[in-house]
Amino acid sequence: MLIKKYGFLLLLSFFVFSVANAQNKIVVFQSDFGLKDGAVSAMKGVAMGVSAELKLFDLTHEIPAYNIWEAAYRLQQTAGYWPAGTVFVSVVDPGVGSSRKSVVLKTKNGQFIVTPDNGTLTLIAESQGIDEIREIDENKNRRKGSSESYTFHGRDVYAYTAARLAAGVISFEEVGPKTGKKVVSIDYQKADYEKGAIKGFIPILDIQYGNIWTNIDINTFKKLKLKYGDNLHVTFYNKGIKVYEENLPYASTFSAVEKGKPLCYLNSLLNVSFALNEDNFSTTYKVYSGPDWTLTINKQ
Amino acid sequence: MLIKKYGFLLLLSFFVFSVANAQNKIVVFQSDFGLKDGAVSAMKGVAMGVSAELKLFDLTHEIPAYNIWEAAYRLQQTAGYWPAGTVFVSVVDPGVGSSRKSVVLKTKNGQFIVTPDNGTLTLIAESQGIDEIREIDENKNRRKGSSESYTFHGRDVYAYTAARLAAGVISFEEVGPKTGKKVVSIDYQKADYEKGAIKGFIPILDIQYGNIWTNIDINTFKKLKLKYGDNLHVTFYNKGIKVYEENLPYASTFSAVEKGKPLCYLNSLLNVSFALNEDNFSTTYKVYSGPDWTLTINKQ
Amino acid sequence: MLIKKYGFLLLLSFFVFSVANAQNKIVVFQSDFGLKDGAVSAMKGVAMGVSAELKLFDLTHEIPAYNIWEAAYRLQQTAGYWPAGTVFVSVVDPGVGSSRKSVVLKTKNGQFIVTPDNGTLTLIAESQGIDEIREIDENKNRRKGSSESYTFHGRDVYAYTAARLAAGVISFEEVGPKTGKKVVSIDYQKADYEKGAIKGFIPILDIQYGNIWTNIDINTFKKLKLKYGDNLHVTFYNKGIKVYEENLPYASTFSAVEKGKPLCYLNSLLNVSFALNEDNFSTTYKVYSGPDWTLTINKQ
Repeated sequence: MLIKKYGFLLLLSFFVFSVANAQNKIVVFQSDFGLKDGAVSAMKGVAMGVSAELKLFDLTHEIPAYNIWEAAYRLQQTAGYWPAGTVFVSVVDPGVGSSRKSVVLKTKNGQFIVTPDNGTLTLIAESQGIDEIREIDENKNRRKGSSESYTFHGRDVYAYTAARLAAGVISFEEVGPKTGKKVVSIDYQKADYEKGAIKGFIPILDIQYGNIWTNIDINTFKKLKLKYGDNLHVTFYNKGIKVYEENLPYASTFSAVEKGKPLCYLNSLLNVSFALNEDNFSTTYKVYSGPDWTLTINKQ
Repeated sequence: MLIKKYGFLLLLSFFVFSVANAQNKIVVFQSDFGLKDGAVSAMKGVAMGVSAELKLFDLTHEIPAYNIWEAAYRLQQTAGYWPAGTVFVSVVDPGVGSSRKSVVLKTKNGQFIVTPDNGTLTLIAESQGIDEIREIDENKNRRKGSSESYTFHGRDVYAYTAARLAAGVISFEEVGPKTGKKVVSIDYQKADYEKGAIKGFIPILDIQYGNIWTNIDINTFKKLKLKYGDNLHVTFYNKGIKVYEENLPYASTFSAVEKGKPLCYLNSLLNVSFALNEDNFSTTYKVYSGPDWTLTINKQ
Repeated sequence: MLIKKYGFLLLLSFFVFSVANAQNKIVVFQSDFGLKDGAVSAMKGVAMGVSAELKLFDLTHEIPAYNIWEAAYRLQQTAGYWPAGTVFVSVVDPGVGSSRKSVVLKTKNGQFIVTPDNGTLTLIAESQGIDEIREIDENKNRRKGSSESYTFHGRDVYAYTAARLAAGVISFEEVGPKTGKKVVSIDYQKADYEKGAIKGFIPILDIQYGNIWTNIDINTFKKLKLKYGDNLHVTFYNKGIKVYEENLPYASTFSAVEKGKPLCYLNSLLNVSFALNEDNFSTTYKVYSGPDWTLTINKQ
């Protein structure tokens, strides 16, 4: 009995230990590499060479080439749904080989982002908060035999460092020296309520369906005191020039309006969004995304 | 010796237990989300938050937007190749937020499909048989903190429930109440042999190669008593209007005919199919798929 | 104490054993199937049915249909970054059902490639060296119940055999008989230095960015004795007809030239490459890849 009891406790502690460990072994990759060549696979191969116990996932590799804003957006859109301890690698890096820093940001909720510090961290630093930032010391954290190649940091530095961090081969402290708590940030217009109207902009499209996602959050939106079925007045501008203006209902579901009709709804991030029921708002009305696309809304 | 023996048995039983368990921890995702944004990754993050021991895979995320028929097709085309115990999540959900039910279907071979009951289950219910269907009780099976968002059931209900089911956090019974053994079904024309001719339709294209896949199965086809090299007569119709008519050979391999020439073959599902050797039948002859596309074949 | 000590040793040996084993359970898939249907998922389902302990990854499934050259290129571009013991499955198979052999090549560094022997092995056989080749014995290594289907060897033979090999269900010897050390090879022009100029060709584009990747390696390139900032003279030909001719600098980073300007650099494979800083060289100057695309470079 004694034996069985001890054995059981040991087994139990081993099991608990390995489960706890497993939760720190997740790496999620994002890039503008696409999936047509071997680049993403090379990054994952390097990671599996560090530790075959890692669990590797993708955020997306279809960030438009060099589009740092969208990398920042996708990262903050998604990271919150992954467990604490997850290590993200984001490689949208038009300045590869230039003097931009390579860093690891630890968020306040205990996630890690491995990336060039080129604006990619703008939104996640705001939404999740910065616990600490360390610059990657490439003398220590760079794949062996890769020093003659200057153009694939994603594989040789970022994937390699992320894998070693996620697998516990290095601690966060061993990434490199602290760099303070500021990241390189991209400027954008905040959602702003004034005298019954809200200004905002279109950070991103829900591209698969052509829905318009704005940066107007639920709390700001509530100041208009709309309930489902109420109409609101919306105007979209591109560089200040009016592109679309309409009255349309605020609805809880797409099917609240007829097919092809427009509606306003709260998306899965609880931001104000616009759609055509079973059709594509963006291509139909030529409304797109980015800092040049702004809007105003008010109760009709 | 006693110690070692007991220790070994305990270790062995632990090992066997964990292997047996691992076989029930597979989740396979399908959607019309595409891979350009963070939606698929958010679903997987939620699943990994439920249990880091899950093994997550994709069926496809390139189902054309809102195309429930194709979701049904891909599901039944693929599910049979996965082991018993696999949990599938299919999210093609034009009615999200409406009154369509969210269900988990258990097939007779012990797989689970987590999906809106909107026609997605049409084909798999026929081919694999229904063991039991339960409606998801969203009071119990919904991600915490998600109740204000109405539009991303894929993440907040389906991925979450599938992960908890696959990981053994909940039993199938804990999904919610039984709903009988009927699913919402899409109507389509069955393969039909009469007087030396077979009628059928084109449920899907082998899109990467442009091959035409019909719903005429090998057993119905055998009634024509064709052997390799024999010619058959085929006519394709769109809404009853003739689009293509030709005599072509029944062959065991594409290379049995010259490059660019048409042939009839049995595809990997053992259904009657049509191709051009090393060319695209569909775009060359403008023959596509869906309930409007029918055909007749007979021995020449 | 004795109990704990023994128990600990047993646990330790179990842990070490399972880690060592895990390193041999990686399978990496490549194909021209695309991601729009269920084909890739069916292959992975078959593999998970062999062993739920396998770790499944993708190289790419976006090889252009039937393009064996590109399959060969992606395989050799990527395989070296994965650990020894990794099993690759490459299915670009225009001759499926014909007499081409199905083989497993073991490289000198202990990786395995499961593929039709149709030219796919051309480059990896050169770069990594052939340890041994075995022809797959389909009487033993074919998924049960699949013998009536002739067109999906990727699922029924290659994925199945790769999974069994990776999981240790069969040894390499049990794949089938040895076939000597020659693979079917595609002819291409080697990089060649003569009298101050280097000839070469364009095996592939860095398609996501439109960069031109040549087969001129760093050692051949060094014979031109260029240093960063020096200009070189480059001419691209299609079937011997001049398409592009320019003087441009050799640079360590893209940002060494102005936006939109051309440069020469060494890519991540340390091969001579050409790009426009933050623009697409290939589409701008209509320079593409394949055996018909050659170039000459010399110091200006």
